[in-house]
Amino acid sequence: MTHSSSVVIAFDADDTLWPNEPYFREAEKEVLKLLERYYRGNNLLDHLYAQEVKNLHIFGYGAKGFTLSMIESVIELSEGRVTGAEIQDIIELGKSIMTYPIQLLDGVEDTLNTLKDFQLMLITKGDLFDQESKIARSGLADHFDAVEIVSEKNDETYTRLLQRHKIKPENFWMIGNSLKSDVLPTDRIGGTGVYIPYESTWVHESVSDDHAAEHHYHELESIRDVPALVHKILG
Amino acid sequence: MTHSSSVVIAFDADDTLWPNEPYFREAEKEVLKLLERYYRGNNLLDHLYAQEVKNLHIFGYGAKGFTLSMIESVIELSEGRVTGAEIQDIIELGKSIMTYPIQLLDGVEDTLNTLKDFQLMLITKGDLFDQESKIARSGLADHFDAVEIVSEKNDETYTRLLQRHKIKPENFWMIGNSLKSDVLPTDRIGGTGVYIPYESTWVHESVSDDHAAEHHYHELESIRDVPALVHKILG
Repeated sequence: MTHSSSVVIAFDADDTLWPNEPYFREAEKEVLKLLERYYRGNNLLDHLYAQEVKNLHIFGYGAKGFTLSMIESVIELSEGRVTGAEIQDIIELGKSIMTYPIQLLDGVEDTLNTLKDFQLMLITKGDLFDQESKIARSGLADHFDAVEIVSEKNDETYTRLLQRHKIKPENFWMIGNSLKSDVLPTDRIGGTGVYIPYESTWVHESVSDDHAAEHHYHELESIRDVPALVHKILG
Repeated sequence: MTHSSSVVIAFDADDTLWPNEPYFREAEKEVLKLLERYYRGNNLLDHLYAQEVKNLHIFGYGAKGFTLSMIESVIELSEGRVTGAEIQDIIELGKSIMTYPIQLLDGVEDTLNTLKDFQLMLITKGDLFDQESKIARSGLADHFDAVEIVSEKNDETYTRLLQRHKIKPENFWMIGNSLKSDVLPTDRIGGTGVYIPYESTWVHESVSDDHAAEHHYHELESIRDVPALVHKILG
C-alpha cells in the first residue's frame, strides 16, 4: 500500500479493537464458583492474580499461560481435592478464551477506513498463535501494512520495531487501552501515545497517576475520535 | 553487521542448534508412568499424540499447549480419577520443558563463527515467549542478523519472511532437522534446503520418502559440515 503521509499509526488489538479482558474476568468468575466448595476466603482473586504473575517469567502473557496458572491455583487452594472433571472444565474455559468470536468495538472499522492516508500497524502482545488466530477472526488483517506480535511492550520493543520498519519516532503514533504497554513507552521513545481507556483493565497493566503524569499523551473516549485528533495535530 | 556475501543462511533452532524433542519425549514417559495406575493399554502414546494434534488448531505448537494437552489426556484416560497433585506434577514437567538449560549441539558455535561472511538468520516455530527465552538462554542471539519466531513453517511463511527481509529465493538457505518444516518448503520456494537429521523427530514432522523424493535438498550428518557445503555450492 502507498500512503500520502509518512506517519505510521499503530493500534493495540485486545481491548482496543475488540473486547478481550472481559473474557478473562468471566473465566475467573467461573473458577471462583468452582472453588467455592473447597475454599472459603475473600482474597481468591488475589490468589489467582498472584499465581499468574508468579508464572509470567515462564509462561509469558496469553490465554494458555493463564489457563495453566488457574489450574495451579485451583489445585493449591483446594489442597489437591479438585477433580479431573473440574480441571477439564477449566481447560474448556481457557479454550473458550482462545476461540471466542471477535466482535469489533464500536467505530473500529470506520476509523481504520478513514485513516487510509497513513500506514497502519497492529502491535499486540501475547501468545503468537492465539493473536494470529484473533487477527484472522477479526477480518481486519487487510487494513494493516504490518502486524507485529510481541512478548512484551516496553521501550526496547518499540525501539526495535521502529528500527525494523525504518520509522522515525516523531512519525510514530501508538493507540491503545494500556498506559503501561501502549502509551507511556511510546511517549518515552519520542512518539505520540493515544490512550483510549477500556471498561476493564488487567491490574498488571495499571500505572500510578503520578507515573502517568510524568508523560505526555492524548486521551480519547472512543476510537472514533482518532481521525479528528490526528488531523488536529498533523494539520 | 555487514557481510561480503548476499546469501542469507537461516537456521532452525530446536533440535538443530540445541536438543528439544528429547525433553518432550521424556515428559511423555513420565506421564505414561503416572497413568499406569489408571489405565492399561499399549497405545498410550498414540492417545497423547492424538490429543495434541486435536488441539493444534487452538493451541498451536509449543510447550504450553503440549502441557495442556497432556493434562486433558490424563483426565480422559484416568476417567477423571487423576489427582490434583498428579496434575501439578504434569505442570511441573511442562515448566521444566520451558526452563531447561540450553546446551548447544556439537559444532554449533564453531559453525556460526565460520559463516561470518553471510547474513545469518534464526527461524523457529512455537510459543513466542518460550522461543525468545530459549534463544536468550542459548547465548547465540548475537550471531544472528535477524530472528523470526513463527507459528507455522510452510511455503507462505518463508515467502513472507523473504519479502520482509528483501531476500531473493536463490540467495536463501535454510538449515534444519525437519524435512516438513525447514527443508522441503525452502526447496519449493526456490531456496536451498539443508537437512540435518536429529536423533529423534516428532511424528507430526515426518514426511513420506516419496514426498521427500519430489524435492531437491542437501543432507548432512552434522552442522559442522555446513561451511564445506556452502563453499562447494557457492564456490
